[in-house]
Amino acid sequence: MKVVIVGGSDAGVSAALRIKELEPSFDVLIVTKDHYPNFSVCGLPYLHSGEIKDFTSLFHRTPKDLEALQINLQLDTEVSMIDSAKCLVVTSHGDEIAYDTLILGTGVLPRKLPVLDDLQSPSVFYLHSPCDGERLETYIRKKHPRSALVIGAGYIGVEMAEAFATRGISSYLIERNDQIFPSAEVSHSNRIQEALEAKGVKVYTSCGVKTASKTEDTKVSITLTNQEALEVDIVIVAIGVLPNSTLAQAAGLASDAQGAIVVDHHMRTSDPRILAAGDVVHTFHRILQRFAYLPLGSTAHKQGAIAGEVAAGSVAHEFKGSVGTQVLKVFENVFATTGIKLAQSLHEGYDPVLVEIEADDHKAYYPGAKKIFLSLLGDKITGKLLGVQMYARTTAAVHKRIDVAATALYNDMTVADLLDLDLSYNPPLGSPWDPLQVAAAEWLRKTATFKASSQR
Amino acid sequence: MKVVIVGGSDAGVSAALRIKELEPSFDVLIVTKDHYPNFSVCGLPYLHSGEIKDFTSLFHRTPKDLEALQINLQLDTEVSMIDSAKCLVVTSHGDEIAYDTLILGTGVLPRKLPVLDDLQSPSVFYLHSPCDGERLETYIRKKHPRSALVIGAGYIGVEMAEAFATRGISSYLIERNDQIFPSAEVSHSNRIQEALEAKGVKVYTSCGVKTASKTEDTKVSITLTNQEALEVDIVIVAIGVLPNSTLAQAAGLASDAQGAIVVDHHMRTSDPRILAAGDVVHTFHRILQRFAYLPLGSTAHKQGAIAGEVAAGSVAHEFKGSVGTQVLKVFENVFATTGIKLAQSLHEGYDPVLVEIEADDHKAYYPGAKKIFLSLLGDKITGKLLGVQMYARTTAAVHKRIDVAATALYNDMTVADLLDLDLSYNPPLGSPWDPLQVAAAEWLRKTATFKASSQR
Repeated sequence: MKVVIVGGSDAGVSAALRIKELEPSFDVLIVTKDHYPNFSVCGLPYLHSGEIKDFTSLFHRTPKDLEALQINLQLDTEVSMIDSAKCLVVTSHGDEIAYDTLILGTGVLPRKLPVLDDLQSPSVFYLHSPCDGERLETYIRKKHPRSALVIGAGYIGVEMAEAFATRGISSYLIERNDQIFPSAEVSHSNRIQEALEAKGVKVYTSCGVKTASKTEDTKVSITLTNQEALEVDIVIVAIGVLPNSTLAQAAGLASDAQGAIVVDHHMRTSDPRILAAGDVVHTFHRILQRFAYLPLGSTAHKQGAIAGEVAAGSVAHEFKGSVGTQVLKVFENVFATTGIKLAQSLHEGYDPVLVEIEADDHKAYYPGAKKIFLSLLGDKITGKLLGVQMYARTTAAVHKRIDVAATALYNDMTVADLLDLDLSYNPPLGSPWDPLQVAAAEWLRKTATFKASSQR
Repeated sequence: MKVVIVGGSDAGVSAALRIKELEPSFDVLIVTKDHYPNFSVCGLPYLHSGEIKDFTSLFHRTPKDLEALQINLQLDTEVSMIDSAKCLVVTSHGDEIAYDTLILGTGVLPRKLPVLDDLQSPSVFYLHSPCDGERLETYIRKKHPRSALVIGAGYIGVEMAEAFATRGISSYLIERNDQIFPSAEVSHSNRIQEALEAKGVKVYTSCGVKTASKTEDTKVSITLTNQEALEVDIVIVAIGVLPNSTLAQAAGLASDAQGAIVVDHHMRTSDPRILAAGDVVHTFHRILQRFAYLPLGSTAHKQGAIAGEVAAGSVAHEFKGSVGTQVLKVFENVFATTGIKLAQSLHEGYDPVLVEIEADDHKAYYPGAKKIFLSLLGDKITGKLLGVQMYARTTAAVHKRIDVAATALYNDMTVADLLDLDLSYNPPLGSPWDPLQVAAAEWLRKTATFKASSQR
């Protein structure tokens, strides 16, 4: 059996590994347009910050590692067409490669900003592929830039603003929305912004690029929609991503309104011989109870493994869906979120109540206690937990505290149920009532169900 | 309505607070033999280590705080008898106090070691009440002891050995069992022991005290069962606790074989007017699906709140039970556990499989990654998760990672289900497959269900 995988990032490689684990005799070929397969694109901001010195340390596995597992690789090769009738793909080099099963893990493409694209400046970067990162890093080391503009304050934007500040490059971060990191509640978004500003990043919200032009010395001159004029050495465009599904669509595979490939819980597309996984597909959202577009590395790994199981001829296990867990480091602070946020819950027709509390990560009498800012969202009608967000210093461990909430969401717990969780306590590390439970009690008080339920 | 609460620690105070929240008009009186109510006994080791300077900072709430909430206090008062027919208690001062509802939160008594008790030495300490801690701290500050023997390597024993080492007092820690911290799997117990030894604590297992005698200068001379002779300035006896249920038993309340008061899921004892909560009662264990003796501060808070709801005349919510979550700090390391351990699972008739893995707390390419040693126990027949234990440096956040496993156990998840959890990932804080999921995959491989399930 021959399995051809298009895309050498998280989804594609996870699929390949799982096939080889289950069916070592299968012939598995990864075709990728990248020069580097199985590369941690998520790690790029920490290369550019200078915290990671060596580009090659960002390989999850090297081509040699993959070949040792008898996974074949064809690098620097774009697939230009799928002939699903003949069960073959055609590469940009004109080669035809036949498959029994095809897995698409073609990921995303960055959204483009024409006003900057048109410049064709060597100082404008998208951070999407390993090669983008390599090019930016080479540029920084050669040119010693002193200023940067980062457009878009999502994941990559915030992380790049942090990276530049860490590296001593003064930077602007601009965001079209009225708050940065739009998946955060306003209070948390403000904290993220303050953390950036405290390190010298200039942050503008409700702000875009009006005009852009090149200067002789490879600088870029920008006018912002707030009328401010800048001249910077680097521009990073990080205004979001789109599923890279042109190939799939040309082959007639079903896709959703955003262009994400439509798959079932086993990663099967509308073509029985073709599977798809990772950032190019839509993802089942357990809270919304429908498919949505949620491109994330951890999800890509899970979906890729399932596609691998199916490709190996198994019924496999189902992809149970995402609950929207995300974590963002901002210098020595962490913002973490799971579930949905207030605005989204209103849009979904819930009767949401949001509580926001502050609690110490451990008993205040033991040195080093840090405040955790925690917001908890629940539906008043059903009592269902809808989402939790936390912001704190890194040592307060909100990156793992959020996973407790994510596990509660996975199991459809109500807000009241959280009070019954047997969470760890000792004074240097916690409190008898965990902050998540303090928020749950506060939510019950606010919705009057805490008192009412006791008075039945 | 008058509610009398016997005991001013976690369970009693939680009950009082909850009653006042629900029914402010109720007359609530806490009678306690302690001089200090609502005191964090769990914090004492960190007072003795010198990390906390001020004894009074260990109050959760001061008597004034409680009085401001209109909770009445009668300190330094032991209750010597319950007359349940007349609905009154008699104090050691001979006073009679009538109740409509009585709540017992009398906690534990330390197990005694006659060979040391008989000495009547001022250098021998039990660490049980706030006053014990006050007496020890005064002794340390006055006498500047240079050596200590800690008998018993459970929670208090290990924390006191750490405390003495931190304070520059050389110490011995001896344990009758063949491993220290018996609720840990052997591999983790060894790690805890190594961490103690690395800081100079001398640890002996399978070891007890053979003889003890006083010297003129208040030192204590000890011969151990391993024949070693010691002379130390302080002896801490920390060989476990017993439910302090003499009062309850004299009043005819049902108790179990260990003497713990028998209660239902609403903290009701066998007398309809008497509730009990905290370390004096047996506790429902969700994994064992029966009552067991599990004295812990976080449980006492939960049970106390429920007793308060019932006392306030509510149906209240049920105590859903403990899953056995515990966390122990050992210098800059943390051991955390939830569920049951291998030996116990065998005893319970499961067909257990234990896997032990090492995984980085975050991507190794980002600076500061720490190894997490994680063991996962599951039942081969049902696939059910039975327990998880972790050991790592403090920054690896195993104290909150364990709560993810505790939440999974609360929800009766299988080991396979863990792979579906949507846990947070970004390179400085995690991995696309969380260590808990790496262990789950390893467990499935070891039990052959990972492959088999895919090949159905």
